[in-house]
Amino acid sequence: MNAVTPAERVEAAYDRIESADRPEIWIHLRPRHEVLAEAAGIDPGLPLAGLVAAVKDNIDVAGLPTTAGAPSYSYRPDADAPAVARLRAAGAVVLGKTNLDQFATGLVGTRSPHGAVRNAWDPARISGGSSSGSAVAVALGIADIALGTDTAGSGRVPAALNGIVGVKPTKGLVPVTGVVPACYTLDCVTVFARDLRLARTAAETIEGPDPADPLSRAGTQSPPPPARPRVAVPAAEHLRGMADGWREAFDTAVARLASTGAEIVEADVTPLLEAALLLYGGAFVAERYAAVGEHLDKHRDLIGTDLDPTVASIVLAGREKTAADWAADTARLAALGAAARTALDGCAALLTPTTTWHPTLDEVAADPVGANARMGRFTNFANLLDHASLAVPAGFVDGLPFGVMFTGPAFSDRALAALAERFADPGLDLFVVGAHLTGQPLNAQLVQAGGTLVGPARTAADYRLHALATQPPKPGLVRTAEGRPDASGIEGEIWRLPAAGFGALTAAVPAPMAIGTVELADGRRISGFLVEPYAVENAPDITRFGGWRAYLASR
Amino acid sequence: MNAVTPAERVEAAYDRIESADRPEIWIHLRPRHEVLAEAAGIDPGLPLAGLVAAVKDNIDVAGLPTTAGAPSYSYRPDADAPAVARLRAAGAVVLGKTNLDQFATGLVGTRSPHGAVRNAWDPARISGGSSSGSAVAVALGIADIALGTDTAGSGRVPAALNGIVGVKPTKGLVPVTGVVPACYTLDCVTVFARDLRLARTAAETIEGPDPADPLSRAGTQSPPPPARPRVAVPAAEHLRGMADGWREAFDTAVARLASTGAEIVEADVTPLLEAALLLYGGAFVAERYAAVGEHLDKHRDLIGTDLDPTVASIVLAGREKTAADWAADTARLAALGAAARTALDGCAALLTPTTTWHPTLDEVAADPVGANARMGRFTNFANLLDHASLAVPAGFVDGLPFGVMFTGPAFSDRALAALAERFADPGLDLFVVGAHLTGQPLNAQLVQAGGTLVGPARTAADYRLHALATQPPKPGLVRTAEGRPDASGIEGEIWRLPAAGFGALTAAVPAPMAIGTVELADGRRISGFLVEPYAVENAPDITRFGGWRAYLASR
Repeated sequence: MNAVTPAERVEAAYDRIESADRPEIWIHLRPRHEVLAEAAGIDPGLPLAGLVAAVKDNIDVAGLPTTAGAPSYSYRPDADAPAVARLRAAGAVVLGKTNLDQFATGLVGTRSPHGAVRNAWDPARISGGSSSGSAVAVALGIADIALGTDTAGSGRVPAALNGIVGVKPTKGLVPVTGVVPACYTLDCVTVFARDLRLARTAAETIEGPDPADPLSRAGTQSPPPPARPRVAVPAAEHLRGMADGWREAFDTAVARLASTGAEIVEADVTPLLEAALLLYGGAFVAERYAAVGEHLDKHRDLIGTDLDPTVASIVLAGREKTAADWAADTARLAALGAAARTALDGCAALLTPTTTWHPTLDEVAADPVGANARMGRFTNFANLLDHASLAVPAGFVDGLPFGVMFTGPAFSDRALAALAERFADPGLDLFVVGAHLTGQPLNAQLVQAGGTLVGPARTAADYRLHALATQPPKPGLVRTAEGRPDASGIEGEIWRLPAAGFGALTAAVPAPMAIGTVELADGRRISGFLVEPYAVENAPDITRFGGWRAYLASR
Repeated sequence: MNAVTPAERVEAAYDRIESADRPEIWIHLRPRHEVLAEAAGIDPGLPLAGLVAAVKDNIDVAGLPTTAGAPSYSYRPDADAPAVARLRAAGAVVLGKTNLDQFATGLVGTRSPHGAVRNAWDPARISGGSSSGSAVAVALGIADIALGTDTAGSGRVPAALNGIVGVKPTKGLVPVTGVVPACYTLDCVTVFARDLRLARTAAETIEGPDPADPLSRAGTQSPPPPARPRVAVPAAEHLRGMADGWREAFDTAVARLASTGAEIVEADVTPLLEAALLLYGGAFVAERYAAVGEHLDKHRDLIGTDLDPTVASIVLAGREKTAADWAADTARLAALGAAARTALDGCAALLTPTTTWHPTLDEVAADPVGANARMGRFTNFANLLDHASLAVPAGFVDGLPFGVMFTGPAFSDRALAALAERFADPGLDLFVVGAHLTGQPLNAQLVQAGGTLVGPARTAADYRLHALATQPPKPGLVRTAEGRPDASGIEGEIWRLPAAGFGALTAAVPAPMAIGTVELADGRRISGFLVEPYAVENAPDITRFGGWRAYLASR
C-alpha cells in the first residue's frame, strides 16, 4: 500500500525520532539495525507492509521487557500479545515500547518514573495518558500506528490532546491476552493513527477471538447509520467548566455534523456522568488492587522512585473497598446503564468533547489527582457501560488540537466510524434537475449514496432544458452561449452527498448524462447533471416550462 | 382453557389446602371468600383463566405483606411484581404467599421461622428450597402454577424433590422488579408446574422487558434443537457421591434421551463445578450482604427467633469479603466460563441430575450447611455462567421423585424445552415399507418430523405388497386373510417419531395411503403404512420380491 519500502519507512522513523528529540516517548526503543533487518523481510504485499508501529509498554512484545511503566514490575514475555502479533502478521514493524502513566492509571501522561511525556504540539503541556508515548509517537509522525490501552479514557484523551484518531473498540473485540491488567474486566486495547481509515484498518486487523482470553467475544456489528442519523449531544449544563474556547469548538463541531444531515438532539447524560464517577470513586478501583496491588505492597520502599506515588495511592486504596461495596456499586451501575440507554434511545451515537481541558505539566504537578479527574468526564463511563468509542480531531483552539468523541453501544464500532467519516467529510453538493429530484424515479440513488436534500435552487438564466429520449425519461440541461436576461433559469434541487457517495454516483452515471458544473441564479457554481450534446440534437426544448416537474405536469 | 370455572377451581384449591394439612406451605394465605370474589370476575377467555397460582414470599403481591421469610423484614407493596401482574392479567388467581428458606438463602426448605416445609411425597424429608412452599403447593395439586426464585438452584432443586417441572429462565427475561434480592445480579424468577407445557406457557407469560428493571433484557432465542441433537452429560467421576440408586436413575434417563435419537457425549464439567463453588465460597456472597446485611446487622437480637441463624451467618460473612476478592473471583469466573463454553461446544444442552440426594429433615438439622452444600452441585453454576436451565421429573427412586435438568446458554430456554419434551415423549414407532425408507424420496418427511431410524424389521408372513400407480411410486401393504406359512414377510424399517411429529405426519398422509397397525415377524404390532383397497385392485402384486427395494432393483 506504500511506494516507500518497509526499510525506507523504518529509516525515516528513526530519523524522525532523532530530530523530534522526545526521548521520554520510549521505555524501550529497538536498535535501528534490528528493526531494519526485520523490515527487509516483510512481504510488500501484506496489507500493513511499510507501516511502523509503537506499542504501549503494558502490552507484550516478544523478547522486549514489559514494564507497565514500573521497572520493578518488568518481565520479558516469550510471545507477542495477539494484538501485536496480528499487526506484525499484517506487515507492520514494531519500533519499540512506549511510556505510559504507570500501570495505565492516569489520563495525564506524567505518572511515570521515565518522566512526563510532553505534548506533540506544546512541550509545556501534557500529552494526556495513560497511552502517552504511543499517542505522541503517532502525532509526531514517528509511528504510523500505535497500540494503547483504555480503561478510563487512556486511548482517547491523548488522541484528542495530540490531534490524532483514537479507536477504543467494544470490550472483548481485541483480546487482552498479554496485556498488564488495569481493571481486568474493563480494559481494551486501542489504536492510534493520524488518519481515521488507517486507524480503522489497524483496529479491524487486531480484532478477533482468542481462546486464551476468557473475555474475548464476537458480536454482530450494528448496521450503518441512516442517511439522517440522530446524534445525541450533552445538554448545556454538562458542557460547563471546559477550557476557554472549548465550548465554542464543540458547538462548531456539532454544527458541522448537523450540516451533513445529522439530526442533533440534546440528551440528559446525567446517568453516564454518574457512572463515570464510579470508576475511581467506587469499589471497582479494587480491580486495580487485584491486578498489581501485591506488587505495590511488596515494594513499598520503591514508592517515590520506581513506583509513582499518585498511582500507588490510588491502587492501594482499592484494598479498602469491600465486596459488599462492589455489589452495591454493581447494582447502581446497572440502574445507571438502564437510564443511559433510555437517555440515548433512538440515537446512533453520543457526540461529546473527548476531554475538558489541556493542562500544562505544571498544573498537573500542582494537583495530580484533581487535574486528572477533570479529564475523564466524558471517557470514564464508556467501558463501565460497555460502549464503543471513537475519538477524532475537530479543529484547534488557541493553536492546540481539540477533539470530539462518538460513543455508542457495544458492537457499534463500524457505525461510529461511519459517523466520524461523515463528520470528517462535510459533503459535496450536487444540483439535480430531472429524474433525481425528490419524488422522481432515480431519487433513491441520492439517498442510497448518503445524500440529504439541501433545498430547491435555480440555474442562471442562460440554461436550456431538453426532454431526452432516455429510459426513464430525463431532461438534459444545456448552457447556451447567448445570455437570456428575460429568462428565469431552470428549477432543481441541491443535494449534499458524502464524497465517497458522490464519487460512486458519478462513476455510475450512464451516457448521455454527465456531471459537470452548473451556475446557479445566485451566482454559485456547483456540481450538477449535464448532458452530452448529441443527445439533445433532436430532443424537444422544454425550457419554457421552467423545470422538469412543470413539464411532466403539462403532459 | 378449562371446563371448570375459575371459582370452582378456587374452591377445589381451598378444599385441597384443608385436606393436605400442610400449613407450613403458606406465609400468607388469602381468605377463600376474597379469592372466590376475584375469580368470579375473571374473563374465562383469558389464556390462564381457571388456574390458581401460589407466589413465593420474596415476590410482591399488591396488598399482601412481602416478608422474604423474615417477619421483621416485612413490608406491604402497593403493586404486584411484573411477574405476578402478568400471570394475573392472563387470568390466573393468586392464592397467597409461600414459605421459603429465609432471604432465599438455602436449597433445603428448612431455614424459616415459619417451620420447615415437608416434602410432598414424604413428610419426613425436606421439600428442597428455597422455593419450598411454592413447589409443594404445586406438587400437592393445590396450585396449578407457582412462582419461585432461583439464584443457586432454588427454582430447580425443590422441583426435582417434589416431582414437578421447574423453569429457570435466562437471567433478565423475567423482570426482578418487586423481588427481594438474594444476589441482585444473579436472581431469576422461576415457574413451577406439574406439566412442562403449562410451565412453559406460564414462563412465557411472565417474560418481557420492564423499564423499571435495569437487568431486564431481551434476546433472540436459540433455534430449536436438530433431529439428532448432541447432549452432554458429566463424566462418571462427577456423578459420584449421589444418593443410592440415583446414578442408576440418571443412567436410565440418559438412555431414554439417547433412544429418542439424541447423541450423548461425555463432557468434562470441571469448570462448571468449580464455578459453582464460587457462589458461596467466593466474594459473590457479598451480594447477599449488600441486599439484606443491613437488616441483619440491625436486628442481631432476633437471630434464632425471627431470623434464621444459618442464613444470618452466611449473609453476615459476606461483609468480610473485599472488593479485590470480588475482582479476583470475577476474573476466575470469566476463565471458568470460557472453559465451560469449550467443554460444551457443539452441544445443545448439558443433561445432569438436578440435585444429588434427598435428605430427611433430621439429616439437614444435624448439618445445615453441609447438607445444603451437597444439593447445589449441578445448579449453583447456572446463574453465574448465564445459563438457562429446566428441571423435569425423570422417574422415581425408592418411591421418591428423581429429576434431571437441561442446562444451556442464555436464550436457549425454548430449545431446552424442546429437548425436555422429547425426553418426556419417548416417541412412537412407525413401520415403513416404501417411499419413506432410508434413501427413498419421502424419507425426509420422517427426519423433518423428528424421526430417527430404530432399525430394519419384517412383517408377519401374511402380508402382500403391491406396486401402486402413485407419484412418487409407492408400494401398498395389504394383509391377506389366509395365512401363508411358506412366505417370509415384507422388509421395512421402524422409525421412532415424537408424538407431535407422528401426528403431523399422519395428518398429512395422502390417499390412498393410511396409517394403521402392522404385525411384525416377531409378533409385535406397531403403527405402519397401509393402503386403501381400491388402490390395489389393479396394482401388480410384487410380494415375491420380499420388499420395495428389491422390487425397484429388479426394474
